[in-house]
Amino acid sequence: MKILAIDSSGLVAGVAVAEDDTLLAEYTTNYKKTHSQTLLPMLDEVKRMIELDLSSLDAIAVAAGPGSFTGLRIGSATAKGLGLALDKPLIGVPTVDALAMNLYGAEGYICPIMDARRSQVYTGIYTFALETAAAGEKTDEDGGMERVYRLQIIKPQFVAPIEEVTEALNRLPEEKNVIFLGDGVPVFHDRLGELMRRPFVCAPASCNRQRAAAVAVLAQRYAAQGRMENAADHAPEYLRPSQAERTRKEKERAQGGQEAGSHADP
Amino acid sequence: MKILAIDSSGLVAGVAVAEDDTLLAEYTTNYKKTHSQTLLPMLDEVKRMIELDLSSLDAIAVAAGPGSFTGLRIGSATAKGLGLALDKPLIGVPTVDALAMNLYGAEGYICPIMDARRSQVYTGIYTFALETAAAGEKTDEDGGMERVYRLQIIKPQFVAPIEEVTEALNRLPEEKNVIFLGDGVPVFHDRLGELMRRPFVCAPASCNRQRAAAVAVLAQRYAAQGRMENAADHAPEYLRPSQAERTRKEKERAQGGQEAGSHADP
Repeated sequence: MKILAIDSSGLVAGVAVAEDDTLLAEYTTNYKKTHSQTLLPMLDEVKRMIELDLSSLDAIAVAAGPGSFTGLRIGSATAKGLGLALDKPLIGVPTVDALAMNLYGAEGYICPIMDARRSQVYTGIYTFALETAAAGEKTDEDGGMERVYRLQIIKPQFVAPIEEVTEALNRLPEEKNVIFLGDGVPVFHDRLGELMRRPFVCAPASCNRQRAAAVAVLAQRYAAQGRMENAADHAPEYLRPSQAERTRKEKERAQGGQEAGSHADP
Repeated sequence: MKILAIDSSGLVAGVAVAEDDTLLAEYTTNYKKTHSQTLLPMLDEVKRMIELDLSSLDAIAVAAGPGSFTGLRIGSATAKGLGLALDKPLIGVPTVDALAMNLYGAEGYICPIMDARRSQVYTGIYTFALETAAAGEKTDEDGGMERVYRLQIIKPQFVAPIEEVTEALNRLPEEKNVIFLGDGVPVFHDRLGELMRRPFVCAPASCNRQRAAAVAVLAQRYAAQGRMENAADHAPEYLRPSQAERTRKEKERAQGGQEAGSHADP
């Protein structure tokens, strides 16, 4: 299965092409340019470099949120455009799940934290569990010693203040360490040091931000489970309303209050 | 510390730029083109996209072998050229160590295997150990709960038949699983199933081949330890003689034998 994956959920712009167990290409940038300046040129560059025939793709995968609203909309719009034009299904991968996938096979708990502003993070809690390889996956016919690590979702992605996240982590039953990653780490690093009651590690540069390759690998698994959608139906998962929506609602509430007030007025 | 890393030790061509805990860019391709067609265009593309001023780099890191002889020479020549032109130090990172670094924080033993032809693999055995963060690294001043995973080399990179590798793995003392990665996996997958006596996993597409970002992260650590060299002094580590050298030696031996024979002749 050949998948093109896109991630523009955060500051990082990423494009990857994976075919089964082979990553054909991955291009990642973390730079001050906007995704509208980077994502399509990067895709075009990769396409040219590996002489990719877009019609040979089986699906388009996209980091489907949470994340930056503008970033998610650019990623989603790009994926939908490609899906519609090429008549290919879309696979939306939860952003925080894909981040956790960066640490394949890691011991302990994995906690991606993305800076959600307003003192909150987009986060989730994960671990990897060893399973015998499922049918259809590479395995010995005799059911030998081969296993796979499956990403286990302990707490699905949510938005919360960092204090709530560390409290949930400190309460986890098993004596395991936590690995943090994501753009929330530099923002909340000192708070983690104050709040964590179990040993924790912050992932290094090679695996601490969004990777389209991780989106592609999770998408392969979703595809095998039939979790695909039509390009027209796809929409990102924001987890909370945007600043613009909040402002509008507040304005409506204020106006509503005023009107209610004026109604109450004789 | 800002590092440009290059990996062309295998089929993969990779370029990455990392500054401390941030990966500014990474570009990886695994395609039938030769590295002389990909590596410099990829570097040029990354340089342009993130507006990289090469003179702002602190060092050039390169996957320094083992690997494909031609690939290593192209990577090494590129790194030396850049190092000499920019007057920057070089950091040679053992290829197999960098591959192991792909699986940051993974539980169990990590065994990269690169197809070395002639029924051999370039390999090594690694694990990650949790350590309190060293001085100079991000840590709580009160010596809190923050830790780092350090890559531990159980058996430094070597070249051997796959049977010798699995025997070494089966004999390891602790009851841990093994994660395999590298381009030797598809070649020797069936043999692994036959030979392994402890559970093993094969890493997925997102982390099963060379990544320049992993080279960059290990290079940061080497730099902190002062393990840098002059561009002029750098040479790759081939681990065994090239086919051309073997052919020449065999020819010399054959000729030597003939001459010895003719000397013995009266």
